[in-house]
Order: sequence, then C-alpha cells, then structure tokens
Amino acid sequence: MTALEQPAILTPSQAREVFRTGEVPETTSGWCRGYVQANLLAVPRDLAFDALLFAVRNPRPCPLLEVTDPGDPLVHDVATADLRTDLPAYRVYEHGRLVAEVPDVTEYWRDDLVGLLFGCSFTFEAALAAAGVPLRHVEQGRNVPMYVTSRPCRPAGRLAGPLVVSMRPVPPDLVRTAAEVTARHPAAHGAPVHAGDPAELGIASLDRPDFGDAVTAEPGDVPVFWACGVTPQAVVMASEPPFVITHSPGRMLITDRSDETLTP
Amino acid sequence: MTALEQPAILTPSQAREVFRTGEVPETTSGWCRGYVQANLLAVPRDLAFDALLFAVRNPRPCPLLEVTDPGDPLVHDVATADLRTDLPAYRVYEHGRLVAEVPDVTEYWRDDLVGLLFGCSFTFEAALAAAGVPLRHVEQGRNVPMYVTSRPCRPAGRLAGPLVVSMRPVPPDLVRTAAEVTARHPAAHGAPVHAGDPAELGIASLDRPDFGDAVTAEPGDVPVFWACGVTPQAVVMASEPPFVITHSPGRMLITDRSDETLTP
Repeated sequence: MTALEQPAILTPSQAREVFRTGEVPETTSGWCRGYVQANLLAVPRDLAFDALLFAVRNPRPCPLLEVTDPGDPLVHDVATADLRTDLPAYRVYEHGRLVAEVPDVTEYWRDDLVGLLFGCSFTFEAALAAAGVPLRHVEQGRNVPMYVTSRPCRPAGRLAGPLVVSMRPVPPDLVRTAAEVTARHPAAHGAPVHAGDPAELGIASLDRPDFGDAVTAEPGDVPVFWACGVTPQAVVMASEPPFVITHSPGRMLITDRSDETLTP
Repeated sequence: MTALEQPAILTPSQAREVFRTGEVPETTSGWCRGYVQANLLAVPRDLAFDALLFAVRNPRPCPLLEVTDPGDPLVHDVATADLRTDLPAYRVYEHGRLVAEVPDVTEYWRDDLVGLLFGCSFTFEAALAAAGVPLRHVEQGRNVPMYVTSRPCRPAGRLAGPLVVSMRPVPPDLVRTAAEVTARHPAAHGAPVHAGDPAELGIASLDRPDFGDAVTAEPGDVPVFWACGVTPQAVVMASEPPFVITHSPGRMLITDRSDETLTP
C-alpha cells in the first residue's frame, strides 16, 4: 500500500479500520484529505503534568487537540477511536531508547497512560496544494523529511530537548504564499519557523533526515521548515523517561474533524 | 484607595510594588490600562495535572498565559513578579472552603505549588471603551459582578464544577459591537457566552452576584456575559481539593504584557 492509495475514497473511520487490521502505509500524508491528522504522545500518569506543560509551553511543535483521561485508551472528542489500534504504527520508547515499532500497542498499553494528541502539518497540505504550492514528498510518494534542529524547546519538568521540523521544498516565488497559507493553521503548527539555509537550524544535510524520507528538490526550490509533531519523540530520546508510546513518524491518527474546524 | 485611583500613571511594576506594600484596591479593573491582567490558581504538584488539563479543556474561562515550575513562586514570562506578594489580595481554600483572604500568601506558600495564570476580561475593557461601549462597573467604581452559572465545565480528573461568568450591562445597539470587539481577545475569554435573559444561565438575580459587586444598569441595557477566570474558584469550591490559593476576585496580577501581544 503506497502513500497515495485510497486517499479520496476512504472516510476517517474507514481508514482507521484499515489500520486496525494491521495495514501499515508508508505515510498517512494524502490520506482522507480535508480531515485533521494527529500526532500521539502517550505517557504514564506521573509524567503527564510535565508532558502537558511541555505542550502548553511549546505550542508551535505541540498544538494540543485532545488529552485523554488517565488509563482511558479511547479518544472521544476529535474522533471516536482507540489509541491502541487505530493508528497505522507506533513507537515504544524505554529510557529514551526505541524498543519497538509495531502496528498495535495493545500489549504495551498501561492503565496509567495519558494520551496527548497534537495537530499535524498534513492538515495544511491540502491548503498548500489548493494555493498552488507543490508537495514534493507527495509527488514522490515519500514520507515528509523531518530533522532534529539545534533550537531547544522550552523545558518542562523532566522533559527537555530540541525542536524537530518538517521540510518541504518550495519554488521561490511561492515561499510567501506557503507562509501565509500555513499561518492560518495555528493548530497545525502554523507558519514556517525558517526558510532557506538549513545550517541556521543546525541541519548538516537535507539528504539525511532524522525521520521520514529525503525528498528531491526541483532546481531553485527553497527549503521551508515547519515545527513538527515529532518533536516530543526527540525530547523523549533526549530526556529518557522510563516509558512512552508515540505514533510512528508520518503515520498519524486520522481524526473525524474537518480541517476547517481548526482554522480560527 | 478606590478602583479608579492611579490607573493612568502607574506602570505594572509600580502597581505591583504598591500591592506588595499591602495596599488592597477594591479592584484592579481600570489599573494600568493597556496591560494584561491575570487570574491566579496555585495548586499542589499532585493536583497540577488535573488543573492544567482543566484549563486546556476549558479555554474560554481558563485561557492559559503562563504556568510556573513546581515550587517556584516567581513569574518569569508575562511579568517579573512574585506570586506570593505581588497581587493585591488572595484567597486560600482548604477542602473547598475559604479559610483566608489576605494581601500576602508568603506564610501559606508551599514548596510544591504550581501557579497557573489565566487571561482576564479586564484586558478587553480598554478595547470596549475605545469602541464606545460604556463600562458601568467602572463608571460606578465597583468590581465587575460575577455569577456562578448552571453550565458545567468539562471535568478533568478531580476537578469539576460550573462555569462562572462576568456580566456587563450594554446598551442594546452596542451588544453586537461588544461581541465583535471581545471576540478578538481569545486569551482574555473572547466573545460573550450569552447576552440577554440571565435565567438561561441559571442566574436567579443579577442583584446578587456570587463574586464582585452588583452594578446598576441603565434603562434598556442588555446583560452581556463572558466566561470568567473566577471559574477555577467555583470549581475548587465544588471539587474540594485539600489546598488551593487563588487571587481575590477582581484583584488580579497586573503583567508586563501589553494587550496587543495577546491579540492573534
């Protein structure tokens, strides 16, 4: 199953049903256009205040969509979904180390877990496309490239670490358009944090993303960087809390909310 | 010292200095026009996740401005201030009961307290006045009237309770203007939650506010209601957590942020 299969014809609940059966697409980018996708960070109750405070202090990478009650694996607000099964794939971290990447975390779920759902830049990709901004990674059937930067997030308790960004190559005459379009989506990371020289974010090479796939830029394209919902994973790797579950980068929870509901 | 003394000539830090010496105005409404004022909820660390989640789930009454680190009584972001001394007056609640109302909480402060600061409707009063909307409570030198409603907030853990609203009588031809002006201030409670019949919010009589002072409406005035930062106090009274400190209703932390910084 490739990135672009099915996006137009599946509803969010149908897509979640596909993922529940164990199908794992390369990415959910392009799936269920017009519906909000969400990053997941599930933490034990004793880390939940730090995690929630981290999100509140870092709204660009971590725009909160919903927070579940401790131990409740069900999402009730942005979707009717089960956090243990309804994402395509998950990562399990212990003391900051990736110990499993699996399509189902039922066996890892704990009664004290709190799920935090954050907005995702996939939400604004439809708006970018509608404004005529090409999406190179979608054209190339790849996951969006993501990079750990040298910019620190604001710490919260035991959680500290770097900002992660997603990058899209944009033709120079469309960089301003891309910035304006995405600024209208604060719940999906909003405007770019940077456009141009990757070195200013401490990124050594665009060819070696830390998450996702490298994309091929067209001649003249400017790399444009947005705060990314994978930031909590980099923070987990840096902060080494005992136990955390996240989505697999690029493989999101597809919610029942339309993109318009998140536009102020 | 009355409500309207000094507002034009004191800077926020000068106003906090006045409060630090123990002066207690009837209200900070009208003080330091153009600067954001903030509601305070300080809770022990073990209630902090519930309190922060409550705020995230109820952004209209509880628009977050800043959250302090556990045990740190100092505000660093929206102001350089000491939460123990720099508000005019405080309330201390034990098991939901008001046990003290004091101008200084140094003797009550604990090493595990987390301070949550929420936006306040006083922020948009300057904008209302600039738009020609009269502020009856300011004209009458009174604290704004606040009412406990029959509308429940979204609960979070051990915290559940009713929405509290502030009320301003508005001439009928200015109700729409008042709604439009305040909608531009989401970090200060935003647009009204109701205009008209108080009974629809379960308010029996406007003459008996639960907090603040009754105001005299002019003939024809429509009562307009906004979500209020005293909501956490009503929730504390309903939920009876062991220990909480709040600001005294109407007597806020005056921050160093200009109102414009909170307008999206």
